[in-house]
Amino acid sequence: MSATLHEITTPGLTENGWITDWNAPGVVGFTKQFEDVLNGVQRMIYATETVSKQDTLNFPPVIARSVIDTTEYADSFPHLLARIKTLDEDDAPKYLKGIADGTPEDEMLETSDVVVVPAACYSLYPLVADGKVESGKMFYVAGNCFRAEASTEIGRFRSFRMHEFVYFGTLDECTTWRDRRADVAIDIFAELGMKAEKELATDPFFRPLQRVMAPSQIEQQLKYELVVPITEDRNIAIASANLHKDHLCHRFEIHGDDGGISNSTCAAFGMERVVLALIAHHGLDFDAWPPSVVDALS
Amino acid sequence: MSATLHEITTPGLTENGWITDWNAPGVVGFTKQFEDVLNGVQRMIYATETVSKQDTLNFPPVIARSVIDTTEYADSFPHLLARIKTLDEDDAPKYLKGIADGTPEDEMLETSDVVVVPAACYSLYPLVADGKVESGKMFYVAGNCFRAEASTEIGRFRSFRMHEFVYFGTLDECTTWRDRRADVAIDIFAELGMKAEKELATDPFFRPLQRVMAPSQIEQQLKYELVVPITEDRNIAIASANLHKDHLCHRFEIHGDDGGISNSTCAAFGMERVVLALIAHHGLDFDAWPPSVVDALS
Repeated sequence: MSATLHEITTPGLTENGWITDWNAPGVVGFTKQFEDVLNGVQRMIYATETVSKQDTLNFPPVIARSVIDTTEYADSFPHLLARIKTLDEDDAPKYLKGIADGTPEDEMLETSDVVVVPAACYSLYPLVADGKVESGKMFYVAGNCFRAEASTEIGRFRSFRMHEFVYFGTLDECTTWRDRRADVAIDIFAELGMKAEKELATDPFFRPLQRVMAPSQIEQQLKYELVVPITEDRNIAIASANLHKDHLCHRFEIHGDDGGISNSTCAAFGMERVVLALIAHHGLDFDAWPPSVVDALS
Repeated sequence: MSATLHEITTPGLTENGWITDWNAPGVVGFTKQFEDVLNGVQRMIYATETVSKQDTLNFPPVIARSVIDTTEYADSFPHLLARIKTLDEDDAPKYLKGIADGTPEDEMLETSDVVVVPAACYSLYPLVADGKVESGKMFYVAGNCFRAEASTEIGRFRSFRMHEFVYFGTLDECTTWRDRRADVAIDIFAELGMKAEKELATDPFFRPLQRVMAPSQIEQQLKYELVVPITEDRNIAIASANLHKDHLCHRFEIHGDDGGISNSTCAAFGMERVVLALIAHHGLDFDAWPPSVVDALS
């Protein structure tokens, strides 16, 4: 689609001042040059809707396990979820003695009440749980997410930032909103010099391992991914538009205007991947990026 | 010290558009109003030194366990460290069957290669490890941190953002830098209408549980905390200035100009706590904050 993609490698990204070396696969630091571009993308995304300060939320990278259990995330993606184990302060001396004696550390730890956040919007749902939400209510949520993926290929960040608009309404309203948001994302990427394609996603999110007989996510057309090329033969998804129908609202008992269970949908951006795609399109040398792209970001 | 502190409670903070309700103790979301103030504080801090874009780093909230082991963090603070356990994707079907059969989840998980970051600068040290660093080299690092603290009192965030300057040099240079940075932080807080006090910290960071006979941290005067009141009878530490001497450089084999092990020091800010202290000083209603403070933040 683009004949002039720039090759991006980890050494090339570090040498040109974008990222640091990793200390674990998929875990890198980001320089101010990278962050400035990421923040520019964030401003462009945020400017496409009007959301109040109070509904614009930044969430921490941990979340109550009970919330994740309510979403049934571990039923669908048990391998992606990072559980946390800790130690009571009172047990610290016993722990250190145990370590000295060769006791396996894990045996002395206890499962924490929190896990690492797998998707930013999960922190939002408990805040509107057990209540009413009017049709058309929209939030902007951001946060660091973690998914325990095995791959080390470029762009497969295990730790990454997800920014999302989340919308509540009837099923029709949510479907219309989801489709429109996919187009808005395509427009943002076009302004940044990238031609994104809308693809029906193949990774379902409703208990795929258990409900093998259920209609597939693809048949229901619940999830669109927006993909761009980052090498001549590889596309990556840099955003998605997801129709949750009433699944999450049912789990959190969120009711709509008519008293029935609300529907919800979200439009999510993988922020590091957007920046990575921009580098692949415009080159490792930020100073040589097209003025129109730099203008859009500033 | 201030006769006019404003009472800050979780309901007051949520009703006035600063934070969300928590989903787990010490784990809250932050509104754009909160983030705008936090980002203003960040700009003031960052402007006090000149650090290149390449040395200004934002780290993810996870880090290789091997790095944390190199710092010996778990020897000092085993109860604060959040270890992560995950599952191989290939084991997902077996896991789901196990859950259905009542097998305890933890027994089916494996210890991950990463843990949750307890302090931002730990991600920096491996990047300068096994090498030389010139005297006076400075970095700015930021990241989400997690400490498994039990308390639920206001200001005791388990998940929080730490921003730090990190400096390498001789012991004398590091000591001078550390003392100067404590004064710079006091000046920043004064510009924001807060009178901070410098206190010798009582929480050591070098294996306190094992080295009970060693000279204490207090005697060595390694760590200053900058505290401000947030209620009439309670101070909180909102920043610290820490002399690591050659401890971390020794562990990571970082050498100075003269070929010997370098020394290092850091000046750290607990970003959420700074904002919380500002709210206690200037009130829950941001629109009523003193113009001089609002100007300093913008």
